[in-house]
Amino acid sequence: MDLTQIQNPGFLKKMSVDELVALSADIREFLIKELSTTGGHIAPNLGVVELTIALHKVFNSPQDKFLWDVGHQSYVHKILTGRAKDFGTLRQYKGLCGFPKRCESEHDVWETGHSSTSLSAAMGMAIARDLKKTKEYIVPIIGDGALTGGMALEALNHIGHEKTDITVILNDNEMSIAPNVGALHNVLGRLRTAGKYHWVKDELEYLLKKIPAVGGKVAATAERLKDSLKYMLVSGVFFEELGFTYLGPVDGHDFESLLENLHYAKKTKGPVLVHVITKKGKGYKPAESDVIGTWHGTGPYKIESGNFVGPASAPPAWSKVISETVRKLAREDSRIVAVTPAMPVGSKLENFAKEFPNRMFDVGIAEQHATTMAAGLATQGMKPFLAIYSTFLQRAYDQVLHDVCRQNLNVFFGIDRAGLVGADGETHQGVFDIAFLRHMPNLVIMMPKDENEGQHMVYTALSYDKGPIALRYPRGNGYGVQMEEELKAIPIGTWETLREGEDAAILTFGTTIPMAMEAAEILAENGISVKVVNARFIKPMDEVYLHELLGANMPVLTIEEACLAGGFGSAVVEFAQEKGYQAKIDRMGIPDVFIEHGSVDKLLEEIGMTTKDTVERVQALLPSKEKRA
Amino acid sequence: MDLTQIQNPGFLKKMSVDELVALSADIREFLIKELSTTGGHIAPNLGVVELTIALHKVFNSPQDKFLWDVGHQSYVHKILTGRAKDFGTLRQYKGLCGFPKRCESEHDVWETGHSSTSLSAAMGMAIARDLKKTKEYIVPIIGDGALTGGMALEALNHIGHEKTDITVILNDNEMSIAPNVGALHNVLGRLRTAGKYHWVKDELEYLLKKIPAVGGKVAATAERLKDSLKYMLVSGVFFEELGFTYLGPVDGHDFESLLENLHYAKKTKGPVLVHVITKKGKGYKPAESDVIGTWHGTGPYKIESGNFVGPASAPPAWSKVISETVRKLAREDSRIVAVTPAMPVGSKLENFAKEFPNRMFDVGIAEQHATTMAAGLATQGMKPFLAIYSTFLQRAYDQVLHDVCRQNLNVFFGIDRAGLVGADGETHQGVFDIAFLRHMPNLVIMMPKDENEGQHMVYTALSYDKGPIALRYPRGNGYGVQMEEELKAIPIGTWETLREGEDAAILTFGTTIPMAMEAAEILAENGISVKVVNARFIKPMDEVYLHELLGANMPVLTIEEACLAGGFGSAVVEFAQEKGYQAKIDRMGIPDVFIEHGSVDKLLEEIGMTTKDTVERVQALLPSKEKRA
Repeated sequence: MDLTQIQNPGFLKKMSVDELVALSADIREFLIKELSTTGGHIAPNLGVVELTIALHKVFNSPQDKFLWDVGHQSYVHKILTGRAKDFGTLRQYKGLCGFPKRCESEHDVWETGHSSTSLSAAMGMAIARDLKKTKEYIVPIIGDGALTGGMALEALNHIGHEKTDITVILNDNEMSIAPNVGALHNVLGRLRTAGKYHWVKDELEYLLKKIPAVGGKVAATAERLKDSLKYMLVSGVFFEELGFTYLGPVDGHDFESLLENLHYAKKTKGPVLVHVITKKGKGYKPAESDVIGTWHGTGPYKIESGNFVGPASAPPAWSKVISETVRKLAREDSRIVAVTPAMPVGSKLENFAKEFPNRMFDVGIAEQHATTMAAGLATQGMKPFLAIYSTFLQRAYDQVLHDVCRQNLNVFFGIDRAGLVGADGETHQGVFDIAFLRHMPNLVIMMPKDENEGQHMVYTALSYDKGPIALRYPRGNGYGVQMEEELKAIPIGTWETLREGEDAAILTFGTTIPMAMEAAEILAENGISVKVVNARFIKPMDEVYLHELLGANMPVLTIEEACLAGGFGSAVVEFAQEKGYQAKIDRMGIPDVFIEHGSVDKLLEEIGMTTKDTVERVQALLPSKEKRA
Repeated sequence: MDLTQIQNPGFLKKMSVDELVALSADIREFLIKELSTTGGHIAPNLGVVELTIALHKVFNSPQDKFLWDVGHQSYVHKILTGRAKDFGTLRQYKGLCGFPKRCESEHDVWETGHSSTSLSAAMGMAIARDLKKTKEYIVPIIGDGALTGGMALEALNHIGHEKTDITVILNDNEMSIAPNVGALHNVLGRLRTAGKYHWVKDELEYLLKKIPAVGGKVAATAERLKDSLKYMLVSGVFFEELGFTYLGPVDGHDFESLLENLHYAKKTKGPVLVHVITKKGKGYKPAESDVIGTWHGTGPYKIESGNFVGPASAPPAWSKVISETVRKLAREDSRIVAVTPAMPVGSKLENFAKEFPNRMFDVGIAEQHATTMAAGLATQGMKPFLAIYSTFLQRAYDQVLHDVCRQNLNVFFGIDRAGLVGADGETHQGVFDIAFLRHMPNLVIMMPKDENEGQHMVYTALSYDKGPIALRYPRGNGYGVQMEEELKAIPIGTWETLREGEDAAILTFGTTIPMAMEAAEILAENGISVKVVNARFIKPMDEVYLHELLGANMPVLTIEEACLAGGFGSAVVEFAQEKGYQAKIDRMGIPDVFIEHGSVDKLLEEIGMTTKDTVERVQALLPSKEKRA
C-alpha cells in the first residue's frame, strides 16, 4: 500500500493477519529505501515492524499511550501515525525528528533520546490516569539494553510495589547498541530458551500432583514449594518477584503470537511485562547479520550491496584517535584500563578490547555505575579511561562530583561527541558538559585543536596523577594532520598562541579553532590584527596568559561550541571581574535554548556561529576607529 | 573496656563470643552517651554494633576493604579503628567526620555520603585486585534502602554477570531513613520470613526424591524443575537470578550466626550477598521504638527521657512551611501531588501524606525515577511537587535537563537543604544546584527571603504553567516572621528593593540577606549608602532592575551561599558583559573547593562570608574617596 496516504492507525483494526504481513513487507521496503538516502536508525526499526503494527492494532493511540524508550525505534510508529510522507526530511534541519516529538503528533506523548526513561514516565502517566479515573492503557516499549539503566530498575521497583496497571513491552533483541552485558541479560537469555509460559505451567500442575503428602516440618516446606512454583525461573521469576505478571517469550515477528499476548496483557490487572523477542535489522540481510552494532544507526548506504556511502578515505575518527592512543599507552602501563557504558563500537574501543580483553569493561547502559566503578579502580592505583559521550555523562553528574572529584581520584574521562552532534538533535547535543563540569573542584578539562594534540592530551591525562582529568573531543573525524611519533605531556593549564595579533584576541578551543583562524585571516586582510589562542585547558585556564591579555586591555572574543551560561566564556568574564580588568569581552556560544536536529553547519549558522559572525563580533569589540573592515 | 584505648581492630581476633557481647554493650553505652551531646546518626549505628564487630573479627581491615554505603553507619567502625577518643568532636569543624574519610584512617578506603555507591566502587576495587592478582576481600555494606538506588542495581547487574568475588553485606533494617518502599522491599520481606536457607535446601532435596519418574515431554520439565529449585524464592532467587550466592537471612544481633555466615561467605567463590537483619536503634528504647525515622539522625538529646535538646519554641522549619503550603493549595487543586525520594519526614510531607494519601508518592531512594515520574505526571496535566534535597538533586541532573526542561513540563521542584548544611559536611552541602541548573533552558529558579515569601513562592510555582520552576530553601528554621493569610503570585523574574542606597548595591537572595542588611546598616553608620536587593529570581533575573543598576554605573556586590563558578554572580557578570556595562562588580560565594563539616557560621567565617567581609568588600568596590568607613 501507499504508506504516505496513512493518516492514523485506525485502518489496522479491520486488517487480517495476512494483510498485516503484507503491510510489514511494505514498511520494511519503505524504510530500507528511505533510510538508504537519509541515513538513520535502520536496524532497530526493522526489528519492530510487526511489534509496532500489533501495538497499534490492539491498543488505541493516542488515548492509549505508547512511550518509546530511547526512541530511535519509533519510525514505524511515525509511519502508522501519518508521517511516512515526511521521511525524506528525516533528521534534517526542520525535518522529521529521529525520535518521538510531541510537536509532531498527538501520538507522540513522551519524548526520548536518552535511554531508560520510559518506565518512570509511564508511572507518572498511570498515576495521573488513576487519579483522574480514566481508563487508558499506558504502554512503555523498552529494549533489553535500556532495561539495565539504573532509573529503569528504580521504576520497575516502584511500579511492581504499587501494582499499577502498566503494560511494559520488553523489546528483547539481545543488543542495546552493542551486544548486551549484565546479569539481567543472562536472566533474559534463560527466559528466551525456556519455552512458553503457559505450557510449562500446565506441566508443573501435573508434577505437583505427583508429590506425595508428607507430614511434619517437611509438609510445610512442600506447601511453600507449591506456592513458590509460580515464581519459577521458567515463568519469569525475576519480574514476578518484582511484582509483574510476566508474559512470554513472544516471537516478535509472528502476528498471531503478538496479538494473542497483547490481548491477554490488556485483560491482566496490575503491571504486566510482555517479553517480545525481536531481531534487529530483520528483513534486510546486511543489517540482520550485523553482530556488533554497525547497522544500529547509519548514514546513507547502497541498498543492494549494503555498502555505506561516504568519502573514500576520511581522516581518522576522533574516537579512534583517542582510544587507539590509550591502547598504545596501555602496552607500557598495566594500570591503564578502559570502561565504557555500552559504547565499545561508538567509542572505538574494539581494538583495545581485542588486545586487552581483561582490561576492557563494558558495563552496559549504566553511566552512573561506570563512573563510580572507575573511581573505585582509581582508589587502587589503576588508571581508568572512561569513554563516555558528553550527553550521556549528564547521567553521571553526581558520580563525577561526589565520587570522583570529591575524592580527587585519577579518573581519565574521555568525553566523546562533545559539541553539536547534528542529526540526533536536542537530546544528544554535547553542549552542557563544560557548564556542568566547570564548577567541580579538582577537575581538569581540556580539548585539543587537532588529532595530533588529541593524542598528546591522552598522554597528558594518563601521565597526570593529581586528580581527575577530562578530555573532550567532538563527533566525527579529525583533520588528517600529521601525527607526531613521540607523545608528550602538555603542561596543565597552558594555552597556545596560534596566530599573533595586536588589535584583539580570540580565545577558543577544539572545533571552533578553524573558524577563528579563518576570521582572523579575513580581518587581517582588512587591516585588523587578531591574535588567536588555543585555549585548550578550559579548567584550569592559563592565568598567566589571561593576565597578559587582559592587562594589555586587549578586546577578547571567546568562542565555544557549548552553552554560554556558566561556560568557558563565563569563566573568562569571571576572571576579568575577579582581577579587576576592564578589557572588552564578548562571548560566542550556544544560547539558552535546546538545539534541534540538523547538520552541524546549519545549526551553527542558525545560532550565529559562522566565520562571518566571528568577523563581525571582533569588529564590534574594537574602538570605532579600528572598525575598518 | 575503655574504647578510647583501641588502636586497631586486631584485638577482636582473640575475643570469645561472650567478650564480643560485652564489647557490644560498651559500644552502645558509649554511642548513646557521646551522641547525646554531639548529636549524630544514632539509630543506624546502634543497629550495626554486632555486625561491625563481626566484620572486623572475620575480615582483616585495611587489607580487606569495607565500603560503608551512605556511610553514616560507620561510627562503630571508627571506634574499632582507633577513633573513639575523637567522638567529642564528631561532625564539628575540623573534628571527626560523620562519614568515612580517607584522610582519617587507612581503614576508610571509600568515602560516602550519598547512597548506593558502594557496589560500583567495590566492583572497581575487585577488578583492580584481580588484575594485580592480590587476594583481599572487598566488602561493601549496603542498606536495604540504598539498594533500590539505580546505580546500586546497575552494579548488581554487572557484578552478577562478571561473577566477581565480592562479599556484599545487605544490612536490612526495613528502613532507609523513613520506612522503605518498593518491590525489592517486598522481596526482602518474603526472604525475612522464609527461614534459613540451608535448612530449606535439605528439605527440598528430600522432596525432589519423592517426585516419581515420568516420561516424555513432562520428564524434561521435571528435570528443569529440579534444576530450577535452587532458584526458588526461599533461597533468595532474586539475587541468585542476578548471579549472586544468597546467604541468609542472618540475625544481625546474634554473633554466632553472624560469624558462621561471614566465614561461609569468605569461602564462597563469586559474588555473595549476606542478608543481615538488623534493628535500627537497637539497645536504646527511644530509638528502637521509632518507626518513622525521627532517630535516624538527631541533635543532642537527654539520655534518660529521649527528649531532644533544643530551643523550646523555634520558628517553623523551612521544609514545613513549604510542604504545608503545598498541602493547603492541594485542597483547592486536585492536580497537585507530592513526590519524595525517601524523605517524607525530612521534607515534612507527613501531613500531606495523611490528608492526601492517594496523592503522595514516596518512591524510595530513587531520585532519577522521582524526577522523570514527575515529568510523566506533568504531561498529563498534573502539578507534581517534587521535594528533594539540593545535594540529592545532583543524582537527577540529566532527568531535570533531558526529561523536564527539554519537554518544558510543569514540574515544581522544592529544592530543600539548599546552601551549606553544616555538620553533614562536604557530601551534603547544597552549593552546586544554581551552577548546575542555571544553564538549563526553560527553568525558573527562585529563593525566598523569609518563610512568608516562601509560601507566596509556593503559590507562584503552583500557579505557573509555562514550564518547570524550582524553589530553593535552606536547611533549618525560618525567622518566625508574620505569615500573610492570603497567598499571592510573585511576578516571575522580579526583584525587590529591601533597602535603598546610592553608593553601591548588594544583590543577594535567601539566607545571606540578613548579613547584607546588617552590613548595609554598618556602612550607613559610616556614611556609605548601600542598596540591598532581594534577587529572589536567580533565573530569569530581573533585567529591568539590572539595566537600571548597571546603567547608573553603581558598584555591585553579589552574594550567594552557593559555588561561585557559574553561579548567580556569574550570571550578573555575564549580563553586564553582554550589555556592555562597565560597573564594578564583585562576587562573594563558595570558592572552588569542597566545604567540609562544621557549623554553618564557622564555615561561612572560614570562606570569608561574614558581615565584616561584606562591609569590606563593598568598601573595596567604592572609588577611593568613598572608602570612609
